Amino acid sequence: MAFHLFHEIEEDLKLVEAELKKQMETTQPTITAASSHLLLGGGKRLRPAFVLLAGKTCDYQINRLLPLAVALEMVHMASLVHDDVIDESKTRRGIATVRARWGNRISIHTGDHLFARALILIAELGDSRISQLLAKASVKMCEGEIQQMESAFDVNQSFKSYLYRINRKTALLLSLSCQLGAMAVKAEPAVTRMMKWYGHHLGMAFQITDDVLDLVANEEELGKPVGSDLRQGIMTLPILTALLRDPSLKEKVRKKEKTEEEIREIIDRIVKTGAIEESKKVALLYLQKAKKELSELPNSSVKESLVKIADFIAQRNY
Amino acid sequence: MAFHLFHEIEEDLKLVEAELKKQMETTQPTITAASSHLLLGGGKRLRPAFVLLAGKTCDYQINRLLPLAVALEMVHMASLVHDDVIDESKTRRGIATVRARWGNRISIHTGDHLFARALILIAELGDSRISQLLAKASVKMCEGEIQQMESAFDVNQSFKSYLYRINRKTALLLSLSCQLGAMAVKAEPAVTRMMKWYGHHLGMAFQITDDVLDLVANEEELGKPVGSDLRQGIMTLPILTALLRDPSLKEKVRKKEKTEEEIREIIDRIVKTGAIEESKKVALLYLQKAKKELSELPNSSVKESLVKIADFIAQRNY
Repeated sequence: MAFHLFHEIEEDLKLVEAELKKQMETTQPTITAASSHLLLGGGKRLRPAFVLLAGKTCDYQINRLLPLAVALEMVHMASLVHDDVIDESKTRRGIATVRARWGNRISIHTGDHLFARALILIAELGDSRISQLLAKASVKMCEGEIQQMESAFDVNQSFKSYLYRINRKTALLLSLSCQLGAMAVKAEPAVTRMMKWYGHHLGMAFQITDDVLDLVANEEELGKPVGSDLRQGIMTLPILTALLRDPSLKEKVRKKEKTEEEIREIIDRIVKTGAIEESKKVALLYLQKAKKELSELPNSSVKESLVKIADFIAQRNY
Repeated sequence: MAFHLFHEIEEDLKLVEAELKKQMETTQPTITAASSHLLLGGGKRLRPAFVLLAGKTCDYQINRLLPLAVALEMVHMASLVHDDVIDESKTRRGIATVRARWGNRISIHTGDHLFARALILIAELGDSRISQLLAKASVKMCEGEIQQMESAFDVNQSFKSYLYRINRKTALLLSLSCQLGAMAVKAEPAVTRMMKWYGHHLGMAFQITDDVLDLVANEEELGKPVGSDLRQGIMTLPILTALLRDPSLKEKVRKKEKTEEEIREIIDRIVKTGAIEESKKVALLYLQKAKKELSELPNSSVKESLVKIADFIAQRNY
């Protein structure tokens, strides 16, 4: 993420980073090492950023927003470390995964530990509506992951099933970050609702863009080889669109073990169907919806930032 | 557990069972199947029983106690399903584990899902102290699991490290069940504290007894072969005691892959050191401490039950 979009909360994002580092310290050296490794791996810290930005829609209180921002990033990290076990991933953002370095067992515990630590922060806020919303989102996120696993290599799945999945995989936690950030500073219910939907639409666009980049990005910028969704059989919007336009691709996409040459050939053919452009259009539609949610917010620098972020997502290439 | 000890809460335990069954129903068929399989595997439902019994120390309200009882059992189930991945277990309580039947991925998600569903129930209680205590206990439980993993096959570890581990592995959640049950019905702080410590001491005794049974139980009653701790390198109280009395056993215990014959030989030698009797004595000491906690409770049928449960734990053979 281009960090200039977050200039408004730049200083407080540093506090988030410092607090995240502190949260990685545990009584258990291996968990500390694995969690710190995960943290150093970086990431865009989108969830904390949206918590803080949403907090700007009302009476900004960093003491309430900080634990929330940190907790939501930790929930995200916990889901990543479990996902890496499940996907048997060797690298993430260009560095070795916790699983590759410490194995499955440590990864499971590190994920459980991060999640439980996040819950402490949330519980300490003393607002059980926040705990409830987070718990409900976590349940749905799990269901999304399972659905992704079970629909792998299913070349006949519907667009609806794709949208269901990316909502749970990505949009939900971004939406929740926006919603809880607003709730934590006691924003008007209407504002909280707008932020929730802004986050949802933005999250959908974000994942669609991710799915496009997984096929056509520069590998160095992406930090991993292109085509990982094809390798894992995850049917994304550009892939499903291409299959609809060129059904003869189905057989190749369905194949479980693909050579690098086959991956490259499939990507070339996907590009030729125009599915990349089509998917980018869908992402743009979601971004328009996201911006529309903001229309009733009073003009302010935070509103401007939120609009700019939506515009940026559409054109990012990493 | 001998169910006659629970006659006081027998009807409400049926409600717990029904509610647990309901909680296993999800929108995701595989999670539903895996969770239901886990539930059908049975278990003593100790945690729900203690929640309910603790609730009898004050103004018993099943509507507040039921979600708590169900949630704590689900947290326990979640930890079991993750442990089975970590231990690569094939059976639990005589039936196939979720891992053996559905694999690692589904097991991780089923565990995450059960835990998150439990959190919804807890959050709905609207008491953030309860959420906090559960989150803190979950963090410690993870740390205990990691410590167990890292200290495997370490024949020179201290008794203190064993006690640390079984506190996190078992006593903590039993203690929390007693404590939260009392808190949920707004028992006096002194009563809540007594229940917390009763649960702790009872839990310690329970795990020590488990560790003894893992060496000398009837395999049919145990539902798994004896010696699984020796196989996994988990150093329990009877093993550590035996090693202190007969250091020449260390080499055999330290060995990673043991034949069935070696396991049997080690167990015979452990028995000969008197370590089994010694460990049973330690369990008894904890049970006495547990009963002592109850001494200031007014006499009542629930107090009687709690005493009887402590007495039963000492002599159980399954």
